[in-house]
Amino acid sequence: MDALRVGLIGLGTVGTGVARILIEQSARMKLRTGREIRLTKVAVRDTFKPRSIDLPTSLVTSDPMAVATSPDVDVVVELIGGLKPARDIVLAALKAGKDVITANKALLCQHGDELFAAAREAKRCIAFEAAVAGGVPIIHTLSQSMTANQITSIQAILNGTSNFILTEMFQKQAAYADAVALAQQLGFAEADPSMDVKGTDAAQKLGLLTLLAFGTRVTPDQFLVQGIDTIELADLEYADELGYAVKLVATAKLVAGKLELHTQPTLVRADRPIAQTDGPFNIIGLTGDIVGTTWYSGQGAGGMPTASAVVSDLIDVAAGRARNNFERLDLWGSHPPFPLQPVEEVNRRYYLRMEVEDRAHVMAEITDALGRNEISLASIIQHETPEPEEVATSGGRPRFVPLVIMTHKTLEGRLRKAGEALAKLGCIRTPWVCMPISD
Amino acid sequence: MDALRVGLIGLGTVGTGVARILIEQSARMKLRTGREIRLTKVAVRDTFKPRSIDLPTSLVTSDPMAVATSPDVDVVVELIGGLKPARDIVLAALKAGKDVITANKALLCQHGDELFAAAREAKRCIAFEAAVAGGVPIIHTLSQSMTANQITSIQAILNGTSNFILTEMFQKQAAYADAVALAQQLGFAEADPSMDVKGTDAAQKLGLLTLLAFGTRVTPDQFLVQGIDTIELADLEYADELGYAVKLVATAKLVAGKLELHTQPTLVRADRPIAQTDGPFNIIGLTGDIVGTTWYSGQGAGGMPTASAVVSDLIDVAAGRARNNFERLDLWGSHPPFPLQPVEEVNRRYYLRMEVEDRAHVMAEITDALGRNEISLASIIQHETPEPEEVATSGGRPRFVPLVIMTHKTLEGRLRKAGEALAKLGCIRTPWVCMPISD
Repeated sequence: MDALRVGLIGLGTVGTGVARILIEQSARMKLRTGREIRLTKVAVRDTFKPRSIDLPTSLVTSDPMAVATSPDVDVVVELIGGLKPARDIVLAALKAGKDVITANKALLCQHGDELFAAAREAKRCIAFEAAVAGGVPIIHTLSQSMTANQITSIQAILNGTSNFILTEMFQKQAAYADAVALAQQLGFAEADPSMDVKGTDAAQKLGLLTLLAFGTRVTPDQFLVQGIDTIELADLEYADELGYAVKLVATAKLVAGKLELHTQPTLVRADRPIAQTDGPFNIIGLTGDIVGTTWYSGQGAGGMPTASAVVSDLIDVAAGRARNNFERLDLWGSHPPFPLQPVEEVNRRYYLRMEVEDRAHVMAEITDALGRNEISLASIIQHETPEPEEVATSGGRPRFVPLVIMTHKTLEGRLRKAGEALAKLGCIRTPWVCMPISD
Repeated sequence: MDALRVGLIGLGTVGTGVARILIEQSARMKLRTGREIRLTKVAVRDTFKPRSIDLPTSLVTSDPMAVATSPDVDVVVELIGGLKPARDIVLAALKAGKDVITANKALLCQHGDELFAAAREAKRCIAFEAAVAGGVPIIHTLSQSMTANQITSIQAILNGTSNFILTEMFQKQAAYADAVALAQQLGFAEADPSMDVKGTDAAQKLGLLTLLAFGTRVTPDQFLVQGIDTIELADLEYADELGYAVKLVATAKLVAGKLELHTQPTLVRADRPIAQTDGPFNIIGLTGDIVGTTWYSGQGAGGMPTASAVVSDLIDVAAGRARNNFERLDLWGSHPPFPLQPVEEVNRRYYLRMEVEDRAHVMAEITDALGRNEISLASIIQHETPEPEEVATSGGRPRFVPLVIMTHKTLEGRLRKAGEALAKLGCIRTPWVCMPISD
């Protein structure tokens, strides 16, 4: 059988890993597919930059479009990320009759409809195992292994950087800024970590999983997305005291025929698999109406784990499986999408931490504001503080003490109204912290 | 496209689940594959037995061979288990031009070579996602998602019954026999639980995973297989005190080019995913040379989770993926199999619990016997016991006290020699308990 000729666009950490595997493991690739998988073109931004991998100069170009449309390429691997010029490159490659492999969740989440339609039009495929959870084969699992089921719930840690930072803060008693600096130093976070720590990256990945599991297209602007950048060490410690861990949890689940979606720092009971997933790891729990809940975990980022997923897609293309898989993917809504549950109707327990004025009647005012919005309290922590006369005076300014409240289940809408009422009281320092508690 | 016509052989828990899904979820099946998946024949042992599912009488027969060779059947689902008549049925089905789906690990582990060859000869496929770990898609993962990797290690809980019993013993402070009785009562264990509790079932599943991951065919008689039937509550409690849990762990790993294989009750550090997997659940850790370690877990047995895996195979057959997958499976040794590491060379830490005579010099004799075999001790537990004069005399018979020893790494061969030396001392009650400790 003819060799499968690969055009690689982008030679960062993942791209370098893919090139290395194709060059060093060519015998293995042939054993798995019966064909050679050969790297024939590589596009890089800077052809003069020194690389950790030796590539023949004849392979390398700085023109990604030349790779996308080259007659010497059968399949294009897009690893540059972002929307521009990735979208144009993928469309050009499909139009030129290439199959496409991508790890670009932002692109698929934003322009998936257009790209999938273009692939179907060209009778080619898009494979994207590497777009979610690095080396964990969650795309294969959802699109092939769980097909007997209607997925009813996805609960996941999808951003390794955030999880590393939260773990580091808790285990080393570190402040948020210090943990971020360490993550950058170790290569787990970008110089600008905002896509990771603000929850966008996890929300885009949740969008892709939602498309596969529920046939419903969503973008992060349509649901609750919060990052870990407002979390303080104190919250991790209170959570621990209460028997929980704080994780950036991405959730998509069917509730009475509507799709509840959110990506937020969340308190998770310490004995649950999500709470036990530490460091730069990802974990995904899938619940199906037949199989029950199954769990998948592993390194969610990093060059080699993600390269492993890209190469498994290449092997699927070479073996002739990828197009069949893509054709059968129920991505384009042959069943109607599920309506999204309005944010106000999301029904959960909540953790509230606030600095409140240390004077008589404050607790009555706060619990009254909550109670009038039908929010009932499950537990309260107010640690003993020194008597006012024992501490230095603060020049007549009111003294504040921390108060932690766990609520019973309530609607997000009621919580927001209660928030407005609490803000009017004037006895609570802003901003306070509010996190959902997972079931 | 024509309907895919299914012949189902065996209508136990899993078979009933499969029939129910095909009947109740026919719209879903069509959505996933573009074709109807239709149940056309069902073979049962006793056609008069009342069933929880209504099947037209015209579908049901007591002759499995009639189903295997029926002209109205495209794919045969074998769910009767065991070697006879399952082997003949599968061979007949393949010869008659049917694809075959089976959950029968005993059959595949014992006669896999013959059956796979017959399938290749007939240009048909055998799909067996349900043979290992129920609803956890470990066969898909190994044969499709991890293909960029050479797997270097598998570590797994593959028998839900044993894991349920161990969990029950520890959590409820129950004796082994009581936990087995409860497992039987709840349907987690057969009337004769020996395949499960003696480790055979887990070892057969490990054999299948080893074939996929290492291209090496092994049967349970070729490696160390021990069950949980000799474990006492005391061992679970000592392990807990030392920071470990006891699990029936199935291991296959490459050590210097040789394949180390064993299925044994094992001490696993409490913070590891395997130690945290309780009840009737399975978990599999796969380490690949590129991806690192990824974990997969879920309900390992039970009618519906296993039926979910069978139906995902049916969907693969209907969608045309199954034959492609099967052709590419590197099952028939296109690379040479790995040699097995001789048992004597397996290098691990060990936990020893023995009842030793409570008299002077006993500890010196025991540690001398171990030391002469180059086994060095990592820790010792001997809890304080009442002074001999404080307890009622036992009529001149020697008094025994429990002693727990954790060794540093040593070879199984040395451990066995030390065992012979310890047996000669006469100060240790037989049998004593010896379990490996996982890395």
